[in-house]
Amino acid sequence: MRTIDWVDGAIELIDQTLLPGEVSVRRITELDDLITDIQRLAVRGAPALGVAGALGVALIARTESDPERRLESAQRLRSARPTAVNLSWGVDRALTVLADGPEAVLAEAIRVRDEDIAACISMGLSGADLIRELVPGREKLRVATICNTGGLAAVERGTALGVIQTLLEQDSLEEVFPMETRPLLQGARLTAWELTQMKAPFRLMVDSAGPFLISRGIADVIVIGADRIAANGDTANKVGSFSLALAAQRAGIPFLVIAPESTVDLGTATGADIEIEDRGSAEVVAFAGVRTAPEGTQAVNPAFDVTPRDLITAVVTDRRVVRLDQGLTMHDVALGSSRAH
Amino acid sequence: MRTIDWVDGAIELIDQTLLPGEVSVRRITELDDLITDIQRLAVRGAPALGVAGALGVALIARTESDPERRLESAQRLRSARPTAVNLSWGVDRALTVLADGPEAVLAEAIRVRDEDIAACISMGLSGADLIRELVPGREKLRVATICNTGGLAAVERGTALGVIQTLLEQDSLEEVFPMETRPLLQGARLTAWELTQMKAPFRLMVDSAGPFLISRGIADVIVIGADRIAANGDTANKVGSFSLALAAQRAGIPFLVIAPESTVDLGTATGADIEIEDRGSAEVVAFAGVRTAPEGTQAVNPAFDVTPRDLITAVVTDRRVVRLDQGLTMHDVALGSSRAH
Repeated sequence: MRTIDWVDGAIELIDQTLLPGEVSVRRITELDDLITDIQRLAVRGAPALGVAGALGVALIARTESDPERRLESAQRLRSARPTAVNLSWGVDRALTVLADGPEAVLAEAIRVRDEDIAACISMGLSGADLIRELVPGREKLRVATICNTGGLAAVERGTALGVIQTLLEQDSLEEVFPMETRPLLQGARLTAWELTQMKAPFRLMVDSAGPFLISRGIADVIVIGADRIAANGDTANKVGSFSLALAAQRAGIPFLVIAPESTVDLGTATGADIEIEDRGSAEVVAFAGVRTAPEGTQAVNPAFDVTPRDLITAVVTDRRVVRLDQGLTMHDVALGSSRAH
Repeated sequence: MRTIDWVDGAIELIDQTLLPGEVSVRRITELDDLITDIQRLAVRGAPALGVAGALGVALIARTESDPERRLESAQRLRSARPTAVNLSWGVDRALTVLADGPEAVLAEAIRVRDEDIAACISMGLSGADLIRELVPGREKLRVATICNTGGLAAVERGTALGVIQTLLEQDSLEEVFPMETRPLLQGARLTAWELTQMKAPFRLMVDSAGPFLISRGIADVIVIGADRIAANGDTANKVGSFSLALAAQRAGIPFLVIAPESTVDLGTATGADIEIEDRGSAEVVAFAGVRTAPEGTQAVNPAFDVTPRDLITAVVTDRRVVRLDQGLTMHDVALGSSRAH
C-alpha cells in the first residue's frame, strides 16, 4: 500500500490523522482538497510531501488551462507548508515540464514518485548490508528505532523503517523496538501500525525506557531517520534520538542514520549551526483533550534534537554510506548511483 | 499542606487521584476507607505509606477493643499493598505499643510522621549544601528531576523535590525542569502541581527532551529519588533516570540520588541483583481511555531502571552523604545523626 499515489486520474492518499484506528484512503481531484490535507497533516513526511507537490502540479495541469492561474495555483500549493523544503522541490520538479502539456507533467510527477521508491529500496539494502557487517554472528537482528520513518513518511518502505522491512524480507529480523515518541506519539500511532501491517514482531516502549533497556542488551543496533544532516555528520532528528545514541555508545552497539541524499546539508557545517525550533507547550501539557499538567504550566518542547557525530556509527543515504566512526565526514565520500559503500 | 496527617481525631489525606485538577482532602475514620484509599493510590509514595500504616493502627486502637480483631485488622491493613515495604513497617512500628493503649499508639504514629518530616528536612539541607559545593560560582541553580519525589510521596517536602524546595527557600533556585515521566505522568500531574503550589519557576518537558537539553546546558544539576539503593551505590528509580544520568555524565554536571536511609539495601550487592518488574502493556498503549497504538500491540514496560554507580555523583540520605564519585560505597560511610558529611 502506498501512502500517496496516482490512481485512475486522481491522487489517492492514506489519511494519517485517522491512524491507527482507521485506514481511510482519500481520493483527491481538486487542488484545494490536497492543500487542506497537507495542512492538516493527513499526508506528512518529507519524501511524501515531495511527491504530493509533484502530483499536485499534475492535477493543476489537467484542471486549469489558463497559464497565469496555473502558476498561481502552484504557488498556493507550494505555500501549504512553507517550511517543508521537499514540497517546494516536488512542485518545482513538475513545473519544469509544464510547457509540454498535462501528460508530460504527470509523467514527471510519477518519476518523482518512482525515484523515491527506488531511493528507499536502495537505503534499505545498503542499511541491511551494513548492519550485518557491523553485527557479525547474529542470524536475526533486534532493532530499536524512534518516530515514524516508514512508508507513511515516504511513498512506500521509508528510510530507517525501510531498513527494518528489508531485514524482515531477508529473514534477518528478530524483533523491533519502536519508541512511542512523545509528544505526538508517531511511534505508537504510525510505526506500530506499519509494523503490524508488515507482520514484523515488535514491542513498543516509552521513550525513556529505550536507553535503559538498550544498556541491558535488548537491541543489536539502532536505526533512525533524519531531518537534517550537517556536513560533519551531526544529525538533527526527532527528539529522543540523542538519548538513544548515548545509550548505544554505552552499550557498544551501532547507531545508524538512514536518510535520502536530499537530507544532507553541506551548507550547515555542524549541529551547532542548526536552530532548535520550540513547538510550544500545548502538545506537552494535554493529551487527547485531557489536561495532564496543572493550568498555567509551561513546557520546553524542542521539535527535534541533534546527535553529535561522535555518537553516530554511519550515515546511510540512497547513494552512499559514510562511516563517521572511521573519521569520515559528508565531504569525504563521493556519491554513487546506488548501494555505494 | 501535608499529604497525610492526624487532625481532630481522624486521618486526613489528599486524594492524589484527583490531582492536578482538584485538591480534595479525604477525612477517614474507618479502617476500610483507608485500605481502599491505599489500594486505589489516593495515597502513594514509600514514606507516606509508612505514616498511613502507623496512623491506621492508631485508628484500629481507638475503634476496636477486641485484641484478636485488632490484630486481624492490622493484618488487613498491612496487606493493602503487599509489595510496599514501608506500609508494613509503619503498621509494625505502631503495633509495638498497642498494649499501652490507644493514646500510646497515636503518639507512636505521630512520631513516625514527625521522623519523616525531620528526615526530609535533613535531606533537603544536605542536598542543597552539596549542590552549592559541587556547582560553585552559580548564585541560583537550574535543577532537572523526574517523577514525583515531593511532599505528595512523603508527609511534606519529600526527597529530591525536598532539596529543590530547600534551594527555593534559600533563594538559590533559578528554575526547575521536571520530566513528564511516562507512562503514568507523575512529573506532569504531581510534581508540576507541587512546584505550582510552592511558586517555584519551572518548565515541564517530555522525558526524551531532557537528555538533549541537558547536553546543551539547560541545567546545573540533576536530582532524583530512589526505590532501592544497592550496597555499591547502583540505584533503582523511575524509568528515565538512567538516560538523565547518561546525559549528566556527557554534560559534566552532578547527578544526585536523594533518599531516606531506609532505601539503602546493603543486602543487594549491585544493580545486577535487582529484578526489573514489567508493568505490562496497558499503561503504554492507551492514555486517558484513548488507544494510542494499534489493537494487539504489546509493550515492554519496566517499572523502573537501574543507574550504575559510575554515573552517580553522590547519594544523599537523612543521615549521610556518600560520594560515589570519590570511589566510596554505601558500606564506607558511617551513619550520622543528621546533615552528616
